[in-house]
Amino acid sequence: MLKNIFENVRNKHTLVHSITNYVTVNDCANILLAAGAAPIMADDIREVKEITAICSALAINIGTLNERTIASMIEAGKEAARLGHPVILDPVGAGASALRTDTTFRLIDEVQFSVIRGNISEIKTIARGTGTTRGVDADVSDAVTEENLSEAVRFVKEVSSQKKAVVAVTGAIDIVADAEKAYVIRNGHPMMSKITGTGCMLTVLTAAYCGANPGDILGAAAASVAAMGLCGEIAYKKTMEAQGGTGTFRIQLIDTMSNLDADTFQKGIKVEVM
Amino acid sequence: MLKNIFENVRNKHTLVHSITNYVTVNDCANILLAAGAAPIMADDIREVKEITAICSALAINIGTLNERTIASMIEAGKEAARLGHPVILDPVGAGASALRTDTTFRLIDEVQFSVIRGNISEIKTIARGTGTTRGVDADVSDAVTEENLSEAVRFVKEVSSQKKAVVAVTGAIDIVADAEKAYVIRNGHPMMSKITGTGCMLTVLTAAYCGANPGDILGAAAASVAAMGLCGEIAYKKTMEAQGGTGTFRIQLIDTMSNLDADTFQKGIKVEVM
Amino acid sequence: MLKNIFENVRNKHTLVHSITNYVTVNDCANILLAAGAAPIMADDIREVKEITAICSALAINIGTLNERTIASMIEAGKEAARLGHPVILDPVGAGASALRTDTTFRLIDEVQFSVIRGNISEIKTIARGTGTTRGVDADVSDAVTEENLSEAVRFVKEVSSQKKAVVAVTGAIDIVADAEKAYVIRNGHPMMSKITGTGCMLTVLTAAYCGANPGDILGAAAASVAAMGLCGEIAYKKTMEAQGGTGTFRIQLIDTMSNLDADTFQKGIKVEVM
Repeated sequence: MLKNIFENVRNKHTLVHSITNYVTVNDCANILLAAGAAPIMADDIREVKEITAICSALAINIGTLNERTIASMIEAGKEAARLGHPVILDPVGAGASALRTDTTFRLIDEVQFSVIRGNISEIKTIARGTGTTRGVDADVSDAVTEENLSEAVRFVKEVSSQKKAVVAVTGAIDIVADAEKAYVIRNGHPMMSKITGTGCMLTVLTAAYCGANPGDILGAAAASVAAMGLCGEIAYKKTMEAQGGTGTFRIQLIDTMSNLDADTFQKGIKVEVM
Repeated sequence: MLKNIFENVRNKHTLVHSITNYVTVNDCANILLAAGAAPIMADDIREVKEITAICSALAINIGTLNERTIASMIEAGKEAARLGHPVILDPVGAGASALRTDTTFRLIDEVQFSVIRGNISEIKTIARGTGTTRGVDADVSDAVTEENLSEAVRFVKEVSSQKKAVVAVTGAIDIVADAEKAYVIRNGHPMMSKITGTGCMLTVLTAAYCGANPGDILGAAAASVAAMGLCGEIAYKKTMEAQGGTGTFRIQLIDTMSNLDADTFQKGIKVEVM
Repeated sequence: MLKNIFENVRNKHTLVHSITNYVTVNDCANILLAAGAAPIMADDIREVKEITAICSALAINIGTLNERTIASMIEAGKEAARLGHPVILDPVGAGASALRTDTTFRLIDEVQFSVIRGNISEIKTIARGTGTTRGVDADVSDAVTEENLSEAVRFVKEVSSQKKAVVAVTGAIDIVADAEKAYVIRNGHPMMSKITGTGCMLTVLTAAYCGANPGDILGAAAASVAAMGLCGEIAYKKTMEAQGGTGTFRIQLIDTMSNLDADTFQKGIKVEVM
């Protein structure tokens, strides 16, 4: 089933509207193209409604938010949701500043998101209205491990139920859940945290997967997380073979996504339903 | 003659002022350096006149336009034109939103551009005041093909005559024309559309070519289009040899531009005058 | 001693707050991660105080300054200095426009910087309140050479004394000095000027080195300059072996930084005290 979801992304040319941070925006555009989708970035409030209307999904990332773009995020988010488009939130650094935390709450309040994707710290901030975020990384003490997995799954399902959105918590082990069902995904490689943008790239990728599979948002989100993690694993191997470093890894990540086929995806993903 | 134009870019250290989108701005800076030119990005209205004055050309790209930067584009454009500098417009997504379309019209109205470079859909929007743009790509039904080539050339010449600027329409076949003369260019590779920024990079490259060759804007624009397309072809071959994907292709594109010499350029370009 | 400084950066996970230009911001984030540090970019005035408080150092780069971000730079700079965090200034293009020059003066006036890092032209602008900058490169006639080295060292020490900050002048020969002591560094490769962002990357790297070594700002700044230059040398060799161009060089630069160990650093740096 996830394989069908993957193939839909490969075969449709899903246009994704992203209002995202300027640090990793180029990687976001390139990963979308690599996956078979297409990017459009637009953040002026006078055009976001029109732009989002011609797209199949919207990704909102608050990584370098400011007053002007926050207003555009809300306007675009409301319109995309009204049109029935999947809307994905990446609450980068929620908990690290009042502005980020408040903006995250405001976005969730005003926009019906399809998927909220963050690290465990950001998701805990959303859940509890508190939390500390070390920059944009999760607190290590809050990492999802095999030991606390069932507790973490229960937590993610609760947040999903509370926010009426699929919630994707990514880390060493990823959990993608709605109120009833969770995908636990064990793809990925630690080197993914040694380059900027893997989280942001995943968010726009999730938007593309949801846009191409609007009838199965939970499956689409899980498939995008697994695809990204699998590409990270393969890219790591190729980087080691080439005796490269993090620069090479970033290029290999995009290469791998652009060359990934459905069989490799199907064989490589490590997905468990809980 | 195009070879001389190429050599001028290699030998002069042409400083190009760009007001461009934040998605591909890094690639724009790097392609300029790779070509032998030099970049400066500045978009605050309080400095754009001074900055453009110390440059040899100005590139304006509306890919992530906003109220603040639109005002800077107009201010910079007027000043550069007043100083006799070549000014290049990339109307990214004209037709996709009223803001983009209106801004494009306003820019053309207020600034005397030397070259307008876009895909066929954007140029049709400029020509007709209407049009649909699927994100920033041309409508496939509007692609320039061998079958409709002479009609397309006539159209581009007409737009050039109407706007009093060289018009460059890029796609599978590229047309660069003024009112009288058209270069038809058959370089390039489809993989160029699988990474973000090839259009944006070409626009700043065109600015560099025009800045280094102010006496032959049409030839300079055509040479820049041919150079970019040729680099795309070579980069594709190298990417396939390396069994790479779109990440590698992007790096190879800049590598190829930085290593391109006049003989390779001269032998590789596929340019026809119509 | 510089080796200890290097090891501290490798072993601590120094969080650096950067308010930097959108041209090279992705490279800045990736070089920090490659060095063992971590990036956070935030430029909204409503959050910069909170964000800088959770970091160990602040880098301010005026490469694409605007009214909104200038205010944030000052607010963040004051707060970081108040907290005793190292604050690094990169006055990109000071001398190229009144806005850049005035902003540089204003920043130096209002913020106590730990390190000011620029090319010789920018530093002369700071020193004399005049100067010409060709884009963001130093005037060639102002280059530091073996012939004018002792004069240049004296000059840099004077600027340091005047501004009460370590001053780092980078070029073919680098000088990093406080009022009393100068490190002269002969690492680096001319290809570093053929990609965008080596200066910007160095600035955030200097912030990371200072943040991880707050007790020796001069040594930390010198070590960061030497490390970057050494990576440039190694990356150049690898690029030539791969028959690559400037695209490959950029990737190799980040690869090399991510793989650099303390012994290679110690053996490779060419540092003289004057």
